Amino acid sequence: MSGLDGFDGTDGLDALDAWWRASNYLSAGQIYLLGNPLLREPLRPEHIKPRLLGHWGTSPGLNFCYAHLNRVIRKRDLDMMFVMGPGHGGPSAVASAWLDGTYSEIYPHVSQDERGMARLFRQFSFPGGIPSHAAPETPGSIHEGGELGYSLAHAYGAAFDNPGLTVACVVGDGEAETGPLAASWHSNKFLDPVGDGAVLPILHLNGYKIANPTVLARIPEQELISLMEGYGHRPYLVSGDDPALMHRLMAETLDRAMDDIARIQEEARSGGNSARPAWPMVILRTPKGWTGPRKVGGVLVEGTWRAHQIPLKAPRTEPEELAQLEAWLRSYRPEELFDEQGVPRPEILEQSPRGARRMSASPHANGGTLLRPLDLPDFRDYAVAVPEHGEVQAGATTVLGGYLREVVAANRTNFRIMGPDETASNRLSAVFERTDRVWRGELLPTDEHLAEHGQVMEVLSEHLCQGWLEGYLLTGRHGLINTYEAFVHIVDAMFNQHAKWLEASRELPWRRPVAALNYLLSSHVWRQDHNGFTHQDPGFLDVVLNKRPEVVGVYLPPDANTLLAVADGCLRATDLVNVIVAGKQEAPVWLPMDEAITHCARGVGVWEWASTDGGTDPDVVLACAGDVPTLETVAAARLLQKYLPDLRVRVVNVVDLMRLQPPSEHPHGLSDAEFDALFTTDKPVIFAFHGYPWLVHRLTYRRHGHDNLHVRGYKEKGTTTTPFDMVMLNDLDRFHLVMDVIDRVPGLGGRVAPLRQRMADERLRCRAYTREHGEDDPMVSGWNYRSGRPDRPSRRA
Amino acid sequence: MSGLDGFDGTDGLDALDAWWRASNYLSAGQIYLLGNPLLREPLRPEHIKPRLLGHWGTSPGLNFCYAHLNRVIRKRDLDMMFVMGPGHGGPSAVASAWLDGTYSEIYPHVSQDERGMARLFRQFSFPGGIPSHAAPETPGSIHEGGELGYSLAHAYGAAFDNPGLTVACVVGDGEAETGPLAASWHSNKFLDPVGDGAVLPILHLNGYKIANPTVLARIPEQELISLMEGYGHRPYLVSGDDPALMHRLMAETLDRAMDDIARIQEEARSGGNSARPAWPMVILRTPKGWTGPRKVGGVLVEGTWRAHQIPLKAPRTEPEELAQLEAWLRSYRPEELFDEQGVPRPEILEQSPRGARRMSASPHANGGTLLRPLDLPDFRDYAVAVPEHGEVQAGATTVLGGYLREVVAANRTNFRIMGPDETASNRLSAVFERTDRVWRGELLPTDEHLAEHGQVMEVLSEHLCQGWLEGYLLTGRHGLINTYEAFVHIVDAMFNQHAKWLEASRELPWRRPVAALNYLLSSHVWRQDHNGFTHQDPGFLDVVLNKRPEVVGVYLPPDANTLLAVADGCLRATDLVNVIVAGKQEAPVWLPMDEAITHCARGVGVWEWASTDGGTDPDVVLACAGDVPTLETVAAARLLQKYLPDLRVRVVNVVDLMRLQPPSEHPHGLSDAEFDALFTTDKPVIFAFHGYPWLVHRLTYRRHGHDNLHVRGYKEKGTTTTPFDMVMLNDLDRFHLVMDVIDRVPGLGGRVAPLRQRMADERLRCRAYTREHGEDDPMVSGWNYRSGRPDRPSRRA
Repeated sequence: MSGLDGFDGTDGLDALDAWWRASNYLSAGQIYLLGNPLLREPLRPEHIKPRLLGHWGTSPGLNFCYAHLNRVIRKRDLDMMFVMGPGHGGPSAVASAWLDGTYSEIYPHVSQDERGMARLFRQFSFPGGIPSHAAPETPGSIHEGGELGYSLAHAYGAAFDNPGLTVACVVGDGEAETGPLAASWHSNKFLDPVGDGAVLPILHLNGYKIANPTVLARIPEQELISLMEGYGHRPYLVSGDDPALMHRLMAETLDRAMDDIARIQEEARSGGNSARPAWPMVILRTPKGWTGPRKVGGVLVEGTWRAHQIPLKAPRTEPEELAQLEAWLRSYRPEELFDEQGVPRPEILEQSPRGARRMSASPHANGGTLLRPLDLPDFRDYAVAVPEHGEVQAGATTVLGGYLREVVAANRTNFRIMGPDETASNRLSAVFERTDRVWRGELLPTDEHLAEHGQVMEVLSEHLCQGWLEGYLLTGRHGLINTYEAFVHIVDAMFNQHAKWLEASRELPWRRPVAALNYLLSSHVWRQDHNGFTHQDPGFLDVVLNKRPEVVGVYLPPDANTLLAVADGCLRATDLVNVIVAGKQEAPVWLPMDEAITHCARGVGVWEWASTDGGTDPDVVLACAGDVPTLETVAAARLLQKYLPDLRVRVVNVVDLMRLQPPSEHPHGLSDAEFDALFTTDKPVIFAFHGYPWLVHRLTYRRHGHDNLHVRGYKEKGTTTTPFDMVMLNDLDRFHLVMDVIDRVPGLGGRVAPLRQRMADERLRCRAYTREHGEDDPMVSGWNYRSGRPDRPSRRA
Repeated sequence: MSGLDGFDGTDGLDALDAWWRASNYLSAGQIYLLGNPLLREPLRPEHIKPRLLGHWGTSPGLNFCYAHLNRVIRKRDLDMMFVMGPGHGGPSAVASAWLDGTYSEIYPHVSQDERGMARLFRQFSFPGGIPSHAAPETPGSIHEGGELGYSLAHAYGAAFDNPGLTVACVVGDGEAETGPLAASWHSNKFLDPVGDGAVLPILHLNGYKIANPTVLARIPEQELISLMEGYGHRPYLVSGDDPALMHRLMAETLDRAMDDIARIQEEARSGGNSARPAWPMVILRTPKGWTGPRKVGGVLVEGTWRAHQIPLKAPRTEPEELAQLEAWLRSYRPEELFDEQGVPRPEILEQSPRGARRMSASPHANGGTLLRPLDLPDFRDYAVAVPEHGEVQAGATTVLGGYLREVVAANRTNFRIMGPDETASNRLSAVFERTDRVWRGELLPTDEHLAEHGQVMEVLSEHLCQGWLEGYLLTGRHGLINTYEAFVHIVDAMFNQHAKWLEASRELPWRRPVAALNYLLSSHVWRQDHNGFTHQDPGFLDVVLNKRPEVVGVYLPPDANTLLAVADGCLRATDLVNVIVAGKQEAPVWLPMDEAITHCARGVGVWEWASTDGGTDPDVVLACAGDVPTLETVAAARLLQKYLPDLRVRVVNVVDLMRLQPPSEHPHGLSDAEFDALFTTDKPVIFAFHGYPWLVHRLTYRRHGHDNLHVRGYKEKGTTTTPFDMVMLNDLDRFHLVMDVIDRVPGLGGRVAPLRQRMADERLRCRAYTREHGEDDPMVSGWNYRSGRPDRPSRRA
């Protein structure tokens, strides 16, 4: 390294190289060693782990980045976070955190000495130890990277509303092939250099994914540069395999990139330049498994896909490989890196920034430590006045929009709403009275509610919306994603991974709770009659309920007031994923606010005003969950009241779906006694459900009355038609519910046959009307539930 | 249009413009008109549909593309398909198909005259009519586009192994923001100009999505060009709003692009050039809602987001809007376009190619008409010889790989395997003995099994794999996608949409059945102990089983021989989505091939050789589905045989998960009598299941013995650990299954308490062993199920 000392007048690259060698040594040691961590004695088979698990290939490149980022942090006193796209390079993340001391601060038994190093090595990918990836257990990480594609979106999410933060994000060239990552490059069109921080993407081309080369590593360099320029970036290339040259090149390059960022921010923040800047990014091309075994058994490993995981596969049984492993590990000269006690030598420790400036100690990466509760207005102030149950109509999300308008205004840098261009479509436009949509593309005079800074982010990519919001939440802020119900399946996998992150985080006391990830699903299955079959899918609820109960909540508020109460609770929650399904069309508001609050607090309850059982001993229970099923159920109850006035009908509405589960399965679960009191143990229960009907069976199969439960829901019947035709197609309509009651309540006898026929005829009549007129019979669409007459529509709120 | 006649010596753009005006008229007519289709009388409110549903904004641009593509098809006698990314422009697709006669051929009641036009208009987005999108009902479509992002992947899938085909693909600028589409541009690195056809992407910038501008429409033109060049394309720009100029520009541009394609193919096919070509693509910039109302109520509509759906919202009630609508419709001069009978005039009809050259009549877009059955080898030839049940070990997917090798070889242009770089990881490498992975990036000497043409396609994007395969299947070929079980959730939404396509297609007699979409999920939840929690998720099965039963199948073959039998069946299937979950590690082969065939044909059956009930009257049923649960169940049965020899144990294995459902729910469903005969109605059933346990409850809740059913499965407990620790974490291990039996079989009395304790102790011992040694006790990992001893491991096949 001679000749590089004193680079740029501020730093010694020799010491930086020593840090790099130390982190490479620690990375390899975690993968291989059970004992003899400092190689004080010759390596023997019993020092080697019996199962070799982990990914070496990406680790030296990640270590290289980390070491060089340390340098610029120290030099410029930067507040920087590190997002590691190739999260399977877990050994690297752990090695760096141990080197800079964070690891031992959080896990004192893994001390920064020989004894701790032995534990560090043993625990990695070991039963009872730590995961092989950059998991929640890893200090400094908000991104596990097990499922690839989201690193850059997470990085931008972290940078929004964090003007003092720079997020360095290594994007692996495997990950770069994914769709979400390919779209994420455009995130720079949504970053405000004034109010937001900076993101420095480092595209790490090590050339291979698992067993194949990568696309971006095998296109001509000019194409790659065009691609990055096309994405709006200013790319810098760092390419090679000679450490000395590479250190100089990387240091020079990062200095230039950080100069660019400083200049961009300064110009923007001084008001001098409002054009969208070409943010820098780095293309780093290094061999896969750099500094590892070059050849094994005569076959090239370094620089090929064979270095992806374990370059030497059998050192425990093959003496030649054992010798090669020892030579490899000794090539880092551990005796120069660690002192007699196994403590990293002072010149290495000095490479690290101090305290919270260490990337693995960044408070942003343990966002709960920074979490400030939202300043929430009183949701009661936005209530729809309901003089009589259901007598007034309102669009639930429209009402919520008014509330969110004030949430936005009261939490300027702490709350964002993400959505794939559906905020207006989902009737939340009131928020635009107090904020704008972020837009750093060209602005035209005809544009509305677009600005360089705003709290609403809209891009036609559910992946970006979700990824940004995850990054925003995990760094200690709050938010909401609103999207069409059917298309939230696009982020099923991202939901799964975020839920898993929360599940694992909850077991780590040092990880402080972060704000809940809240989904507002509108434009739902029953109100996509106009867009047709592709837009009709309520199955996200099934996906959500597969995760551990303690991290998920599903709410189906039946009207505007219950939506307000539910939303307030969800915005206050932490370490959860909440799903709220709510309609956007005008619909009856069933409950005055005080009743709505009580009902939501209970999560499930009898609606006495719609029931005819006098509070005891019903003949049949009509249960419902979801706004449209509730409307049909109340209508069915009224039909029964009219035509079978002797029948004792109980209407039960479910807001909090988890209440249906046994308390052993979910903390919200009703006790069996409570469940039985509501649903009875022996009476027929006709359950009108928002989603796929079997979900209700799955939640209730252990309940006493389950054999009497008959669920109607979406059974995958749909097309472009009218709203009432949609419910008829799926036998969820009021007339069919009455028929279900007739079919299931014993002892009604022949006297109900005419009524049953009448209901069937009503269905035929409605269908015929619809097919003739192209719209629903006003009797069912503009129906007033109290009068039962279309000529007395409910009032608008 | 004067001065443009005779453009390029071959065609008249006047007539082309007339076609365009006709298709625009027909598009608007579908959205608005209930009657008076030819405007023979002044427009009156009753001529207007009561609900205005549909998307005008994108339609004129789509019509423009279709008209111009017709021109180049005729000029060059091209075999061309049209993929419409903005599938919500359904009016455009339907209008074009009606104009070229295909629509009336398929739907004779919608004849190509005034009467048919009236029906065409009425049926659109009307109850009992047709969907608003380019759905299966639409001739010429393989792509609905309800969920955006997959058009370009579908187009490439259609082009693979179709060297004579050119696929024109309009990509909307909204769709272009999605991740899957952003990644799809790189598909050109996987297209072979010799063996594959061509794709001509047309990026249609109309500037807006629903309520926002689009990213690609608002970046500087130079950035956009760089982006497309970076993606490896040669971009051509066509921009403007003057129809006359635009016609000339588009015609010239398409001529150049088609020349490029012809030259690229000729050079490659004559062996003159093997470099990856820069395929042409077109950037078409036109106003949203082009030729529609420019302003409504003083507000600009044309060229803004307000033109997205319905530009005039209330012509039925607002006289001014009615007049504006009439003026708009008359601006196309329908009297010049259609004759007295409403038949398009001859000069318009002449614009259309003939017969199967019409894009809406392309046989590729009704792929079932081209479907050739696979030439399948006899899977019995690949069977593992099993002298005694479970005595031999083999990796299931490794064995399948041998079979697939011959499938590949026997079906060179009719079968592809897609996967996100996991074909080797999933142990299917035998296929590389007969084919290669397609790779049009740079090739290095160290590369293996990469070639310019091949039947295996690997890219680290599940979206691309799925999209390519869908396009390939929908155009009449066969294939398989192999991927990690946890990450198949990435394409949940794409699966949903494909299943919906099949559900709708099955109701259309003219759509011929296409080959099944087959998923091979390996590296499954129980064998991702090394990668950790993020890689452990069996929930795709829950997603799949939400779709209509007639289009989905789920198979859990317990060993290599049953996998062969299942795979053979799945490769022969049509109009289905089949999911096969199979392990890749060495594991017992339980069944000789003849028994495997019988077992798979039945889908579920008693394994007498593992049972001790003598075929009648068991005390307990041990049921299992999935390879790892089967191993644990057989081991548990053997433990019970050893320690409780009097207990009558029946082992039931389930291969075909749909057999559990009632026959009313799924065509594979067992009758209640069959179910009861297998599972009994009154004995405890301990069910060891591959996935989330509640899925089994959901499938069986109506069965007589359901209350006695106790399911073990994955309950979201995982980390980086050992395989046996994974099953222990979820109480699915053999010891816990024995404890479950003890806890649930009545009358065993106190004599079993020591055995229960012994089982609990075994679990503790195994966990301690694992934590000490870092690997599983050979007693459970290398366990021979017959001897029960680790020193007699089963033989390798």
